[in-house]
Amino acid sequence: MYDIILAHNENEGRAFLRRLNGKNPLFACVIGVTETAKISGISAAGKYPELTDYTPPADVELLLLEKCRCISGVPVTPEGIPTPGLITMSALRLANIPVLVVSGGLKVNPHVPFLDLGGKPGRDIRKGKAVDNVEEVMWRARIAGENLSKTADYLVVGESIPGGTTTALGVLLAMGIDARGKVSSSMPENPHELKIKTVEEGLKASKVEFGGLADDPLKAISCIGDPMIPAFAGLVLGAADKVPVLMAGGTQIGAVLAIINALNPNILDNVAIGTTRWIIIDKTADLKGIITQIADIPILAADLNFSQSKFEGLKAYETGVVKEGVGAGGAAIAAMAKSKGSITKDALLKEIERNYDRLVGSK
Amino acid sequence: MYDIILAHNENEGRAFLRRLNGKNPLFACVIGVTETAKISGISAAGKYPELTDYTPPADVELLLLEKCRCISGVPVTPEGIPTPGLITMSALRLANIPVLVVSGGLKVNPHVPFLDLGGKPGRDIRKGKAVDNVEEVMWRARIAGENLSKTADYLVVGESIPGGTTTALGVLLAMGIDARGKVSSSMPENPHELKIKTVEEGLKASKVEFGGLADDPLKAISCIGDPMIPAFAGLVLGAADKVPVLMAGGTQIGAVLAIINALNPNILDNVAIGTTRWIIIDKTADLKGIITQIADIPILAADLNFSQSKFEGLKAYETGVVKEGVGAGGAAIAAMAKSKGSITKDALLKEIERNYDRLVGSK
Repeated sequence: MYDIILAHNENEGRAFLRRLNGKNPLFACVIGVTETAKISGISAAGKYPELTDYTPPADVELLLLEKCRCISGVPVTPEGIPTPGLITMSALRLANIPVLVVSGGLKVNPHVPFLDLGGKPGRDIRKGKAVDNVEEVMWRARIAGENLSKTADYLVVGESIPGGTTTALGVLLAMGIDARGKVSSSMPENPHELKIKTVEEGLKASKVEFGGLADDPLKAISCIGDPMIPAFAGLVLGAADKVPVLMAGGTQIGAVLAIINALNPNILDNVAIGTTRWIIIDKTADLKGIITQIADIPILAADLNFSQSKFEGLKAYETGVVKEGVGAGGAAIAAMAKSKGSITKDALLKEIERNYDRLVGSK
Repeated sequence: MYDIILAHNENEGRAFLRRLNGKNPLFACVIGVTETAKISGISAAGKYPELTDYTPPADVELLLLEKCRCISGVPVTPEGIPTPGLITMSALRLANIPVLVVSGGLKVNPHVPFLDLGGKPGRDIRKGKAVDNVEEVMWRARIAGENLSKTADYLVVGESIPGGTTTALGVLLAMGIDARGKVSSSMPENPHELKIKTVEEGLKASKVEFGGLADDPLKAISCIGDPMIPAFAGLVLGAADKVPVLMAGGTQIGAVLAIINALNPNILDNVAIGTTRWIIIDKTADLKGIITQIADIPILAADLNFSQSKFEGLKAYETGVVKEGVGAGGAAIAAMAKSKGSITKDALLKEIERNYDRLVGSK
């Protein structure tokens, strides 16, 4: 349907997409930071580990303003590949989709309006005390989700948090979902061993075994998660009672899904995952393998392909860098659905290239 | 039309109301604090001056949760009359209207989600340096307004800031609108002399004469305004380009209107004032007399009448206390319009009494 791949649960995915057709979504982008991102070799979301505090605010500035304010240029990987926020922004602008920024916990606030939920930045999960205030932040996010569901036809929720696949792995293992070797990476060489070692240290510090917190999702986040997760899960829990919610992202969404499934599985009929083709074809990770252990919801993937792009920094997406983030896949899907397919993957690439040229230059 | 008084510019007011009929609004409540509220005798929005820092966060907690969290009970005047937020909450709940809280600058954050615009609490206007960061906060509010206008059919914007009629008087005089003796009060004895003296001190400290900042609205707010004003004005400036905006409040809205009129009068075709009958019949103030000096937009007033209420604390509204606030009048109008009149003033009073009984008790 349109340029969207029905990557898992085809029939339910098609039915879900039909419900979005021509409708007006709101895109909520949940941002947060965790010190876990600064462990050497964990994240490529920021040129240097110290810069990862700036990546989430810079990403949402890009969405709202078509340029960043808290950094010059746009967030890039160490190799100079630009943030997937460039894809998200291009899709949202083409389809005129409104954006709400939601903070789960930040060190640097974005220079744009954002919804404050009282959250704090996350700590290094190796200490086993990663996130404060989880219940309160999730509760506030739920209130926000309930209110947003009264104004938008549906929600698309995306995220930006460097180091997020590692903290997601932590939550998944604590909850008994075997995601070892299955979470994705923004780097072409997925550092699975480093992620597993980091998580195992955190589990040990928390005195938690694999599956030990299957019935205590809030504690799993507190011990070994990140501040994006309770904010994202709360929004979905508040909204999906009333309207469809497209959870936009890669394997990190698995952790959010595990939380929601533990707290209120009834709403999952109203929920699907929206991601990119690069996540689906990623041989170093296994989104389906995570999801099917939790709840068998549909996976939709924007059929983006940058192999013919004239820009090296975009072509590089085909070599397995970045892949997803800032809700890029979900935003692309929402743009296609809102425009009833008149926004194609080709139109999207054209707009992405236009923005790339403007913001990154003709490298 | 319905239980709504066309209080000024009847034809335009009727046409404006028709555009709201059956539509889905979003209610944005802009909150802020100013030290000006702590000048003895200025405000009744809080039992003691020191409590005025808690009134705005408590008001918005009431809107979202049907109860307060940062204080016990609900905000009351020194005589124990409850906040008009009780009216707002009852109207929004009856009509299932979503709420977004927006902070212009606070000392105490609400224990609910709120949109942060980077604003700071306001200082005592007698020093002539009342508000920091005015341009930035207004710009961020404009970004928010633009995005909200893509998801809601129209906006209702209300406010809660103790001391706000005094700071409004300051901005109005600095901009050359003679509002002396015309601004309203939450107290039955309107302390006009005290307000004028306070403002004159601030004008002197700012080295500004009457009308001296007619062409510099941002400076008028910086010198002698409050942090609610740039946030409120920015939301309207961002949204009214696309959708109708009902500016909900009493004479304080005059200051907001003066700012908007100075920055972008073209959008005023899309703007009306929504207030209460108590403001219209207030003999100690003159909303129309302020508005007509600025821009002749329609004034709509919810025809609320508590004279037959079984609760003394509500009956007291008929003696000239409180009158308006937290967008009470605009919320009542929006509830009537959304329900195409099936929410009447009687239905509203019944719901307000139910909530009064629950939250204040049968005093």
